[in-house]
Amino acid sequence: MQQPRENTVFVGNKPVMNYVLAVVTQFNNGAPEVAIKARGKAISRAVDTAEIALNRFLEGVTKKEILTSTEIIDTDTGKTNVSSIEIILANNK
Amino acid sequence: MQQPRENTVFVGNKPVMNYVLAVVTQFNNGAPEVAIKARGKAISRAVDTAEIALNRFLEGVTKKEILTSTEIIDTDTGKTNVSSIEIILANNK
Repeated sequence: MQQPRENTVFVGNKPVMNYVLAVVTQFNNGAPEVAIKARGKAISRAVDTAEIALNRFLEGVTKKEILTSTEIIDTDTGKTNVSSIEIILANNK
Repeated sequence: MQQPRENTVFVGNKPVMNYVLAVVTQFNNGAPEVAIKARGKAISRAVDTAEIALNRFLEGVTKKEILTSTEIIDTDTGKTNVSSIEIILANNK
């Protein structure tokens, strides 16, 4: 089984600054990398989170990798596909 | 001045299959690469477009690069920042 990655911020429907704060806090606590993940319509907010964190708050942190994929979700009406994104930020200090 | 990239699909508010069809058509017409671009809330739909095109319609095409950035937009109420994404698909045949 794959080990769940530490230092992951899951982006949902809250205001974007909540997630920016979560990312910045993890780097301030010494995380070498933080993964920002989202599915479906929250994908736009995940990109906003990364852009705001990098442009306004984080020095020496860069985008390391951006991955997209398709996940199969079980719903009441059967299985459905949803797109997901993972943006990995890395501290280069 | 930078040459505008050919073979670009700008994703907006139309149904996602419109954009999938545009991407598939460009590859069928011989394009070696197609760039899928979107800003703001359409970013999620751009990811959907790439995932659906790759998973259902395109053989031998892969994600080459995913870029995100922040653009400054002039609006009636002043300048505002908006996130953008560019997903570059490449035909490896």
